[in-house]
Amino acid sequence: MDAEVFSPLVWKRGTLYVLDQRALPATTTWVPCTDASDVTRVIAEQRVRGAGATACAAAFGVVLAARARASDATAEVMRHLVEDEVARLRDLAPGCVQMFWALSQVRDVARVSVETGDAHRIVDALEARARAIHAEDLARCQRIGAAGAALLADGQAVLTLGNHGALATAGWGTALGVLRSAARACKRLRVIVCESRPFLDGARLSAWELARDGMDVTVVPDGAAPGLLARGEAGALVLGAARIAPTGDVVTDLGSYGAALAAAAAGVPTIVAAIACAIDPATTLDVGAVAPDALRAAPAAAPLPERVATAAPAADVVPGSLVSAIVTEHGVHRPPWPEALRSA
Amino acid sequence: MDAEVFSPLVWKRGTLYVLDQRALPATTTWVPCTDASDVTRVIAEQRVRGAGATACAAAFGVVLAARARASDATAEVMRHLVEDEVARLRDLAPGCVQMFWALSQVRDVARVSVETGDAHRIVDALEARARAIHAEDLARCQRIGAAGAALLADGQAVLTLGNHGALATAGWGTALGVLRSAARACKRLRVIVCESRPFLDGARLSAWELARDGMDVTVVPDGAAPGLLARGEAGALVLGAARIAPTGDVVTDLGSYGAALAAAAAGVPTIVAAIACAIDPATTLDVGAVAPDALRAAPAAAPLPERVATAAPAADVVPGSLVSAIVTEHGVHRPPWPEALRSA
Repeated sequence: MDAEVFSPLVWKRGTLYVLDQRALPATTTWVPCTDASDVTRVIAEQRVRGAGATACAAAFGVVLAARARASDATAEVMRHLVEDEVARLRDLAPGCVQMFWALSQVRDVARVSVETGDAHRIVDALEARARAIHAEDLARCQRIGAAGAALLADGQAVLTLGNHGALATAGWGTALGVLRSAARACKRLRVIVCESRPFLDGARLSAWELARDGMDVTVVPDGAAPGLLARGEAGALVLGAARIAPTGDVVTDLGSYGAALAAAAAGVPTIVAAIACAIDPATTLDVGAVAPDALRAAPAAAPLPERVATAAPAADVVPGSLVSAIVTEHGVHRPPWPEALRSA
Repeated sequence: MDAEVFSPLVWKRGTLYVLDQRALPATTTWVPCTDASDVTRVIAEQRVRGAGATACAAAFGVVLAARARASDATAEVMRHLVEDEVARLRDLAPGCVQMFWALSQVRDVARVSVETGDAHRIVDALEARARAIHAEDLARCQRIGAAGAALLADGQAVLTLGNHGALATAGWGTALGVLRSAARACKRLRVIVCESRPFLDGARLSAWELARDGMDVTVVPDGAAPGLLARGEAGALVLGAARIAPTGDVVTDLGSYGAALAAAAAGVPTIVAAIACAIDPATTLDVGAVAPDALRAAPAAAPLPERVATAAPAADVVPGSLVSAIVTEHGVHRPPWPEALRSA
């Protein structure tokens, strides 16, 4: 892996170090995970977040679970132990396709390598697979970045929401990977990042990682995005995606729908960047809701009168009709949907 | 004035009590203003805000300035003193048409009553005018409320932004006056209030005053508004206005443009409630910007990395093409604009 690339996960001498995203931007704290329960905890407490980063952390979690028993378990016991650990981790993020896929891979490795009959060999094989999953996610993000960067012009102002960055992946990011690749290709971008209430992923995380790279970042309130687009203050809207339906409908950050409507009205392209496995025929467009208490407990929560209720959908749906391009590791896909997504 | 109506300004035995809106919703603190400098301070420190409330406070400020000199000044000196005070207060809120208009009235009273030759009589006349300005603003809001309430249905969910309520006026409010009048007419509304970053006027102020009235209030993040409208979770969008151009273009809270776009796409009406004097041929659609530091100093500011910039437009423009109705004290006006606004 490119040593210069920032990753929120570092595997070093058998310990997984996880950058604590809840502590950002105030402090940069790396949480050492030496056994599987440490990994479960950082995932459950959302110290690591984002499909790609969580999937990688989970893969290393299985390695740590297996290693803890390597000296006293038979290969067959190891296989069961891996199956159990995989099932347990999957339950932590039931909707996360990418984690599902990463855990399937480590489980398959355990199934195959159990035939060698040696617990230590199984651990070695699992570790090699987890490292590969990490490297592959990074490589996919860099391919997304390279493909998407071609859609942005030097000197352009770009609006983005949430955090689909290095922090949400093995590194580089999807939406922010596109901006990062454009910057590496010497395109000077002005990045406008929405705060992204309620959890402030934009203000806390995207702003942090883009500023860390020396990029020009301005944080704006979420309500400002449609008006900025209407006044031509951004030349592209670049979004990430939690999941994408074959119709091109994208489930993504709260605020994206209003921004995409305004972008379409202003003739500004809406570009969605995501790993191809986010395109899922089983995608539900039900956005769900965050826990009502979450709004009162969120970072920088508004001072609220006692007797009022709070609510927040967990996501927005941007209809495919508003999406100008979907960029995956396989390239740039353009409407009409669903035809264009068949090859994605 | 209706004793049951809540006002953020109470004039009692020669003292103006101003509800400190910066302390809401945590504490209910009434700041006593016994001289003109107290009034200047509550306006400058935004402890009172909103065109109607600020205009009323300013009128009482002139009364306090005149009273302080009543025993030792000639009528002619009093007149000059009133002129100076009016000019000074006007400079505190140069764009506020309603304050301009209220101050013109008290200045005219001073000009006329100076002919009686008695400083005390001038003070009495100024006080009577200030009380009348307060009562008239309330009455106008109640007329707006009655006209607008007819546009809302029993059981409806209504989305609103910012604070165009009792707190922003002499009482009752404009946008919130419409909701209040509907509730008084036994229409049960579910009110969805956007937080309204950066200053959280929705979460802090509108939620507080509607909950105080026993209304059903839910606070949502600003980015949620367009999606909620798209999913039919609100049957009307009710906005206030800082100013309205004859074209029907409305300068109002950040986030209103995205909400109005989504409302139009969903077939949900966008209703704007405002005092008729907000409709101004000289209206500029330049939204301006809040001071860059304001975002870091705002209540519940996002924790931001040091090296990033912040920015926020001071308002949004909702184009007249997205406005279904403009409600003033003269009734409900409907497109086409500008024809419909000639009689407003």
